[in-house]
Amino acid sequence: MTAPTLRFEISEYRARLEATRKAMQRDGVDLLIVTDPANMAWITGYDGWSFYVHQCVLVRQDEDPIWFGREMDANGARRTVYMDESRIKSYGDHYVQSSQYHPMTALGSLIADLGWSKGVIGIEKDNYYFTHAAFEALSTVLPNALFKDTTRLVKWQRIVKSPREIEYMRAAGKIATAMHQRVAEVLRPGVKQSDVVAEIYHTAIHGVDGIWGDYPAAVPMIGAGIDASAPHLTWSDRELRSGESIFFELAGVHKRYHCPLSRTFYLGRPDQKFIDAETAVLEGMAAGLEKAVPGNACEDVAQAYYGVIESYGLKKPSRTGYSIGLAYPPDWGEHSASFRTGDRTELRPGMTFHFMSGLWFGDWGIEITESILITDSQPECLANSPRQLIVID
Amino acid sequence: MTAPTLRFEISEYRARLEATRKAMQRDGVDLLIVTDPANMAWITGYDGWSFYVHQCVLVRQDEDPIWFGREMDANGARRTVYMDESRIKSYGDHYVQSSQYHPMTALGSLIADLGWSKGVIGIEKDNYYFTHAAFEALSTVLPNALFKDTTRLVKWQRIVKSPREIEYMRAAGKIATAMHQRVAEVLRPGVKQSDVVAEIYHTAIHGVDGIWGDYPAAVPMIGAGIDASAPHLTWSDRELRSGESIFFELAGVHKRYHCPLSRTFYLGRPDQKFIDAETAVLEGMAAGLEKAVPGNACEDVAQAYYGVIESYGLKKPSRTGYSIGLAYPPDWGEHSASFRTGDRTELRPGMTFHFMSGLWFGDWGIEITESILITDSQPECLANSPRQLIVID
Repeated sequence: MTAPTLRFEISEYRARLEATRKAMQRDGVDLLIVTDPANMAWITGYDGWSFYVHQCVLVRQDEDPIWFGREMDANGARRTVYMDESRIKSYGDHYVQSSQYHPMTALGSLIADLGWSKGVIGIEKDNYYFTHAAFEALSTVLPNALFKDTTRLVKWQRIVKSPREIEYMRAAGKIATAMHQRVAEVLRPGVKQSDVVAEIYHTAIHGVDGIWGDYPAAVPMIGAGIDASAPHLTWSDRELRSGESIFFELAGVHKRYHCPLSRTFYLGRPDQKFIDAETAVLEGMAAGLEKAVPGNACEDVAQAYYGVIESYGLKKPSRTGYSIGLAYPPDWGEHSASFRTGDRTELRPGMTFHFMSGLWFGDWGIEITESILITDSQPECLANSPRQLIVID
Repeated sequence: MTAPTLRFEISEYRARLEATRKAMQRDGVDLLIVTDPANMAWITGYDGWSFYVHQCVLVRQDEDPIWFGREMDANGARRTVYMDESRIKSYGDHYVQSSQYHPMTALGSLIADLGWSKGVIGIEKDNYYFTHAAFEALSTVLPNALFKDTTRLVKWQRIVKSPREIEYMRAAGKIATAMHQRVAEVLRPGVKQSDVVAEIYHTAIHGVDGIWGDYPAAVPMIGAGIDASAPHLTWSDRELRSGESIFFELAGVHKRYHCPLSRTFYLGRPDQKFIDAETAVLEGMAAGLEKAVPGNACEDVAQAYYGVIESYGLKKPSRTGYSIGLAYPPDWGEHSASFRTGDRTELRPGMTFHFMSGLWFGDWGIEITESILITDSQPECLANSPRQLIVID
């Protein structure tokens, strides 16, 4: 079998492993069971749409990580991870989506066979792919283990991006820019939402400037007319109407690295409430971006934004950003730092966030956002799209 | 606020609720907590990309279901569910992806306030969106509840499709057919994988014959050359080469209903092992389809297929199909019946399956599949694509 195509130097995977091991030592974790697909990819390179069945990476201090998954996916591991054949373990297909057998029983047996069944085992308790049934099956086979929550252990190691990761995110930013340009080209009254999204996807995957597009961890989310009151609806074939707004929350993606970006379009002449909201959002974003510098905390960005929009009589009862980077469905957020009151995470160069400044009200909404890189001075916007309400008249 | 656009008659939602309630009575469940997004949609109509935060539907015998989710998603519920405003409950944004607060604590409090904290509570223990942390938070607030696993309770109610559901799946079949036609049009040596996938997505969402396309629960999976040894890899910008095969596992989707379909293409003149495998797969599928009739069991289809391919010296160590229909990421399978040895589920008209006859070996693979509807006699193929190895010379 030919060697897998790795997206990073082996030395970068090794450095990630060492950072993870240090965090394990700090937290007293002997064996780490990594079930988050982005964490699995970050540590080993593994990349495949197989997270719909149970799988994981095992990390110890003294030997290379082990990839564990469904038998038919072991070949996908062979094609994508940096470890050698001896570090790929799999379970039989009868464990898959069965009411009789659970893959975590097979994992528990493997752990016991390796002599790792005692001591502290870290589990990602709040990861989508570590269900309560997974815990029940695993803990039944490993009665002598002490389980500890490590939901965010690897996630926090990922928060400062490497130069190569930043390169991929800037590439994703170019794709996100092109996607919104394409929207502006095709958005007209009478056009179906689904036809706009078809164009968005074409641009997203074809890419731009020779940069190919990967699939996003969440599909395009749109809000037209009254549906703009809700941030997470998707499309239908409803035709766009003159005199209504529509927002698009999209991500450009390159090699699994994301750059989310939202813009709001108005078909026709926007009414005053949109113009006023645009003013508030843009001024709030400028205030937030000014605070997005090393040494400040995440909450400083949020409070700067909240302060401005509240001075305009608007309110945002939700966080106003979150860490981004490598991601798999269903979320492109990293589930570590957030721009919100109480989050004292110190901003450092190399961190990347989606400044999610969207506002949603009873029957309308507006989304104008940026994905940013924290630098030594002012933040860098990863995409390059006019930061305004885009009027299509 | 204007009324939501429902995809089924209220009477159909009511019938689904009654079927679910009967199953709850049979299993002694007083309160059902539905966290599977497809189950939530099937019962209430809810449709939004919000499953990346904790949410659920509560079902009781004596009153309408309750939608429970993040505050910003409550408007999405108002736009999509059939229940009235009083049945929409939400939690504040500080619960979202926090290491201090968990949304299931808020759910537990709601359940206690409603007086439902005793008795048997059904939870979908092995659903992606019911993590072990979700259980810990919920059970801490509800110490007097008896929790019972209902991972498959609603899934089994969904297995026989209604006439409207079948209409949507036939529409999805038309889209799947068009997607593979588009692949055949653009697949040539030197073309980038990502550019083929861009065309696939455009067709998938634009749709065909006035039928719009929804997003699939899994992205296009492809295997070119040696990567065809692995079923769940995705694309890059690698150029297609003459003298290699490539398979595409794609789903057409309409209003969240899926029709998966795989075809394998060969660029150039296929070598004998592909031609032999094609013969085995097609004969095996014919044998399996003949068994896919009412009164037979799921395992009869699998065994007919296994029998034929083994007579050709090939082996498939995995299941050969699964129930399909309404789905959300990360899986378009319904996690109920499978075509595999030991699955004695009786086939009934209105059931729908992906007959997943793909074979993967050490350094190659072949996928030619069908999505089928069980009828009174022979099964109906939902898509209409030439069932063969497609040679592009």
